[in-house]
Amino acid sequence: MFESSARARALAEKVSRFILEEVIPYEKDPRNHGHGPTEDLVRELRAKAQAAGLIAPQLSEEWGGHGLSHRETATVFRAAGYSPLGPVAMNVMAPDEGNMHLLERVATAEQKQRFLRPLAAGTVRSAFLMTEPEGGAGSDPSMLKTVATRHGDDWVISGRKWLITGAQGAGIGIIMARTGENATMFLVDMDTPGIRIERILDTIDNSMPGGHAVMNLDEVRVPASQILGEVDQGFKYAQVRLAPARLTHCMRWWGTAKRAHDIAARYACTRHAFGKPLVDHEGVGFMLADNEIDLKQAELMIDWCASVLDQGSLGTAESSMAKVAVSEALFRVADRCVQVLGGMGVTRDTVVEQAFREIRAFRIYDGPSEVHRWSLAKGVKHRYKDSTAGTAKQA
Amino acid sequence: MFESSARARALAEKVSRFILEEVIPYEKDPRNHGHGPTEDLVRELRAKAQAAGLIAPQLSEEWGGHGLSHRETATVFRAAGYSPLGPVAMNVMAPDEGNMHLLERVATAEQKQRFLRPLAAGTVRSAFLMTEPEGGAGSDPSMLKTVATRHGDDWVISGRKWLITGAQGAGIGIIMARTGENATMFLVDMDTPGIRIERILDTIDNSMPGGHAVMNLDEVRVPASQILGEVDQGFKYAQVRLAPARLTHCMRWWGTAKRAHDIAARYACTRHAFGKPLVDHEGVGFMLADNEIDLKQAELMIDWCASVLDQGSLGTAESSMAKVAVSEALFRVADRCVQVLGGMGVTRDTVVEQAFREIRAFRIYDGPSEVHRWSLAKGVKHRYKDSTAGTAKQA
Amino acid sequence: MFESSARARALAEKVSRFILEEVIPYEKDPRNHGHGPTEDLVRELRAKAQAAGLIAPQLSEEWGGHGLSHRETATVFRAAGYSPLGPVAMNVMAPDEGNMHLLERVATAEQKQRFLRPLAAGTVRSAFLMTEPEGGAGSDPSMLKTVATRHGDDWVISGRKWLITGAQGAGIGIIMARTGENATMFLVDMDTPGIRIERILDTIDNSMPGGHAVMNLDEVRVPASQILGEVDQGFKYAQVRLAPARLTHCMRWWGTAKRAHDIAARYACTRHAFGKPLVDHEGVGFMLADNEIDLKQAELMIDWCASVLDQGSLGTAESSMAKVAVSEALFRVADRCVQVLGGMGVTRDTVVEQAFREIRAFRIYDGPSEVHRWSLAKGVKHRYKDSTAGTAKQA
Amino acid sequence: MFESSARARALAEKVSRFILEEVIPYEKDPRNHGHGPTEDLVRELRAKAQAAGLIAPQLSEEWGGHGLSHRETATVFRAAGYSPLGPVAMNVMAPDEGNMHLLERVATAEQKQRFLRPLAAGTVRSAFLMTEPEGGAGSDPSMLKTVATRHGDDWVISGRKWLITGAQGAGIGIIMARTGENATMFLVDMDTPGIRIERILDTIDNSMPGGHAVMNLDEVRVPASQILGEVDQGFKYAQVRLAPARLTHCMRWWGTAKRAHDIAARYACTRHAFGKPLVDHEGVGFMLADNEIDLKQAELMIDWCASVLDQGSLGTAESSMAKVAVSEALFRVADRCVQVLGGMGVTRDTVVEQAFREIRAFRIYDGPSEVHRWSLAKGVKHRYKDSTAGTAKQA
Repeated sequence: MFESSARARALAEKVSRFILEEVIPYEKDPRNHGHGPTEDLVRELRAKAQAAGLIAPQLSEEWGGHGLSHRETATVFRAAGYSPLGPVAMNVMAPDEGNMHLLERVATAEQKQRFLRPLAAGTVRSAFLMTEPEGGAGSDPSMLKTVATRHGDDWVISGRKWLITGAQGAGIGIIMARTGENATMFLVDMDTPGIRIERILDTIDNSMPGGHAVMNLDEVRVPASQILGEVDQGFKYAQVRLAPARLTHCMRWWGTAKRAHDIAARYACTRHAFGKPLVDHEGVGFMLADNEIDLKQAELMIDWCASVLDQGSLGTAESSMAKVAVSEALFRVADRCVQVLGGMGVTRDTVVEQAFREIRAFRIYDGPSEVHRWSLAKGVKHRYKDSTAGTAKQA
Repeated sequence: MFESSARARALAEKVSRFILEEVIPYEKDPRNHGHGPTEDLVRELRAKAQAAGLIAPQLSEEWGGHGLSHRETATVFRAAGYSPLGPVAMNVMAPDEGNMHLLERVATAEQKQRFLRPLAAGTVRSAFLMTEPEGGAGSDPSMLKTVATRHGDDWVISGRKWLITGAQGAGIGIIMARTGENATMFLVDMDTPGIRIERILDTIDNSMPGGHAVMNLDEVRVPASQILGEVDQGFKYAQVRLAPARLTHCMRWWGTAKRAHDIAARYACTRHAFGKPLVDHEGVGFMLADNEIDLKQAELMIDWCASVLDQGSLGTAESSMAKVAVSEALFRVADRCVQVLGGMGVTRDTVVEQAFREIRAFRIYDGPSEVHRWSLAKGVKHRYKDSTAGTAKQA
Repeated sequence: MFESSARARALAEKVSRFILEEVIPYEKDPRNHGHGPTEDLVRELRAKAQAAGLIAPQLSEEWGGHGLSHRETATVFRAAGYSPLGPVAMNVMAPDEGNMHLLERVATAEQKQRFLRPLAAGTVRSAFLMTEPEGGAGSDPSMLKTVATRHGDDWVISGRKWLITGAQGAGIGIIMARTGENATMFLVDMDTPGIRIERILDTIDNSMPGGHAVMNLDEVRVPASQILGEVDQGFKYAQVRLAPARLTHCMRWWGTAKRAHDIAARYACTRHAFGKPLVDHEGVGFMLADNEIDLKQAELMIDWCASVLDQGSLGTAESSMAKVAVSEALFRVADRCVQVLGGMGVTRDTVVEQAFREIRAFRIYDGPSEVHRWSLAKGVKHRYKDSTAGTAKQA
Repeated sequence: MFESSARARALAEKVSRFILEEVIPYEKDPRNHGHGPTEDLVRELRAKAQAAGLIAPQLSEEWGGHGLSHRETATVFRAAGYSPLGPVAMNVMAPDEGNMHLLERVATAEQKQRFLRPLAAGTVRSAFLMTEPEGGAGSDPSMLKTVATRHGDDWVISGRKWLITGAQGAGIGIIMARTGENATMFLVDMDTPGIRIERILDTIDNSMPGGHAVMNLDEVRVPASQILGEVDQGFKYAQVRLAPARLTHCMRWWGTAKRAHDIAARYACTRHAFGKPLVDHEGVGFMLADNEIDLKQAELMIDWCASVLDQGSLGTAESSMAKVAVSEALFRVADRCVQVLGGMGVTRDTVVEQAFREIRAFRIYDGPSEVHRWSLAKGVKHRYKDSTAGTAKQA
């Protein structure tokens, strides 16, 4: 179950060449800056990926992809993440990739034509409007404050959203709103009256087009036909999106961490101090050894979790374990790479500095490690509270 | 390649029942003490394993086993390690298991009949005489000081050995000795004149029968027919034994760490403090969550490395990575279990206290983590020194 | 306030010589074993300390000491802890040292003559009967189950105690028992009818005479005159004993960790591997550097907390901070020393192995790190909940 | 020796008010951005500090300060660092503060009038041109490549420098250049012909005015009178600057880390998730408890090292210990603060995000932790190689 497929490996090799030859040269493009790459740069990169036949390869064939399994996706996305611009170019970055995944599984045929079609083609970007400012939905989704109320055939949505990735420049959005005791997801065009971007947050990361926005939803009127799937199923659909989205984050950032390691390892082999190459200093060599161990462990966790998802499980606990293990491991890798590079490591002269910042944010996105540990601890209690595991005749 | 087989899973289930029902009750036997379980206790446990058909199942059918692959062995040995007495009962503990592995691969047909036969049956124990006291072979095998010199058809071996596991009570031994610029392995009966146990070391661990001895080799005369394999191939054979032996250590101690976790998790569900069960305190629940992550990661590293060995690779780098990652992870698990148990954790009332001590020693046996990192760093240098990895057009 | 005094430094030097010349040679005495040094060995060591004028120097002059401040005590106890037998020899080990501290502050004149006098002289040992088995008082003292009820002029105490250090062989004890909503401490002769040792626990540590006992209190009759201080003040007195006792633990184990470091550092300078002394391998040298940093930090935390106590503060939060920081730092030191020694580190050939086990237990004794963090977090909440700290005009 | 003075505490309180009332409001000023605060913003802040009498208070009275000891400086600089703009406002940031320290100790009376006077007044900024690009002086100063050669009464300097903090906008500079086997420091006006800024590096940090520059020195002609102190004493003077400069970095960033902690602690008290305030989740509360421990330890290390410097020691080893311990501790604090803030933590809505980035860089500036550990390990070897420490009669 763990093995990737030959076609995935071949695809990943193609992706690797594409990243090296076509994408990395854009990393220092002045348009790759501030609140993420500009729309103009995104278009340029997408055209290259289009030409290479590398747009959203994970999607089913119906939507232009290869119908990759989660396990196969892991192989391909790790290659894509070798540059922070890679997933943007290939239209597999967050939040679009997770939104497409959700739409494929939950949207009606009509909704797919209207909303998924352009998304899958990479000609339009999307946003996922769930997180809210202080006091609203965050790690604890039950705190959702945005409300949708029925007005005849329409629904009217009001509330505020926060840290909405890619909203600036997005054509379509998925809004999560409270409907009584439950929650419902709504598909919207982002130019629907009432949807307003208050400001773009300055953040530690800057790989995602459009950055992260604070948004105001003021009586946004949406026809019932734009309810994603069914009414009141919002929390359930959030679960459908959750585990795979967490995991594709792990895959992409794995690639970036690997890149950072490659840069640091090569640097350590060429730069000298105190009479020998850095790599011959155990203080440096051991960090690189630990990097390789951490990368291998992270890779295995990703592949294991992907295999679990491929077997049809929701993978809630498994993806929590993977998210904690992978994000913490990749951060250690990125942190060590900065350290190995020394003064060079704090500059933007290599992509290591960005990798460090992005992966720091990743430890919080899709649930801080603490929220996952909390959830895993609940699982421990559930499994052990009536068990005699480990004890046998042990007093 | 990662998946275990149905037969291995069935065998592991049988092992699990055996450990729970037959082995764990012996853990508090007064004969399980000090320098490891007594010979008498070993015999009693072996008889139970014999009756259950669980003696050395990893061996080829010729030697009474099931011819398990490394990957299958992992499944079975993890189950065996659920009690520190489990591997002893099943005749799969160090150093015998590694010695049998080596003999199967390197010994002549005649040597196998004489030395491997009783070992495989579990009626005789063995020792591996490689490590030497200060100034001799340890992490750095090239420092080997014990010397074998040819006298006609015999070889005469002199030197001192140190930390020789299971020597006390062993019937046969493998001696590593310098022969000119190279090293050679010799098979010996432990009652050969000149082989003397100076003392048994008091050590932090006590799971291995016979403990760990300091030994004197004083003109030990051995016929050439007892050279294991060929003259001057000692270092090469050490490599054959090395990676698999490292990995079976990982497998067995994984089981013990899992046991400690089960005990700690159950304790946390039943014991209360400050108004609620311990497990509802995040300070405790998070430790248990981290245990589950560490156990999963360790399991994956073991299975990955086993698969590499099954493909015929020497697995030197892979087993170094696995050894560091697994021993450090299992130690974190054991340490957290002690902490979760609080006062109970420092007592021998549960097996957690022993698990903690044994796994501490494991971080040093078969090469301290630092030696493996050193070796991995050499690999990094080798692979990166002429590479352009990670850099592409990156300045 | 941080500086120690000239007299304390002179005393510490005297102690250091005493430990090196008189105490360390006893470490391998066969009587120093199992459940702590035997009574016979304790007497022999005490006679040496008596001859050197080094019995309980921290006590006030009235009780034969030098009236050392907490800060001065730190200087002297760190020197005493250089051997695990040092505090035993000097009559400054737990629990006697904390019991004497408590008696000096709370006992009546008459009680002091009867109970403190022989304790201060080092001719009698004592126990502190507070902790209880599962379901009773542990980290959460409010769970106290042992009950004392008034019968005329006497009190009758029943319950069970657990992990009672030094009970075996102790002449006197302090029993903590519930009296209605409160708790009361009682001074008892250990041969009072009804006090029974059920068993001595096997534990990971073995420095304390008498080991750790499970005890049964069956209608133990005690006259009201043996109430320590006043009725119903047990929890308050526990606080009086608490912070200083925590801190003297830190002082003593600091000395032991320093010893381990000295041994490891010297070993690293003499032992060679891979062509140079271990210390020239950064993987080893960096561990020793980190040891020196950890030891310095632990020393500073101890001295700071002692100074706070000297100013008359209860030092509850400060001693919690010191306990966590020092015990965790010293454990890192001991763990690194084991690692630096390699195979030698897991044997009892040096005292490092014992240091490692003792300091592991120390992370739990006097409150596991988690309980202290819990208590410190309460303090954070108390101080910040209505504060505007850090924010000013920050949005 | 550890205690600060009453005057230092009074001054620190004044500084604290100044930071809260006058400096923090500028943190979100658009001029505080990119490559550090603009010159315009620096002037505005300096005017406020001037009005408050808080310009460079550590300097001797001759140069307008209060002649603070290192220990007193610690008290004051920790307060100044409560905003990253605080040290800039008060003219106590790097590299000026270290340069002034060096000039006070080494420059001639005439040099002081010309170079120190305006620096001390805060009307001119300075740069320290030591570090070089790949292949030149970095952690290993002996690799210095910039060369100064004598031409009559002048010296002519050529080379390249890298990561030169504050060069952009600086009026004066100190250039370190090779003179034969030795090195010499030269005082220069930054508009001296031949001094050219190649580019300003984009870096992870942005608190320092002028950012960090790559510089070209092309036959820069300097009269002999501008040699700082004496010819060939460059390495010695670097040592004079080194330890105090490391330590003032620790002091300032301590203040910033404390600020981050205050923000995180207050946030944890007000923000709710899963039914209670964040601070009541142990997963959060324990992080804040660990922050308080780390901050206390860092404070003690700073004060201890400052006291060592006040006694006239060079403090090379002590400041290495302090640098490693403090920078690593403050980074843990900043990292936990980001984590406690969750989504808010990755945004620039609080100063925590900047604190995290700045302190990450601090782990590299003034020597990466690894270089200090390397140097400390040398000290271990020096002290232990002929010692019998720890061993006594221990075999």
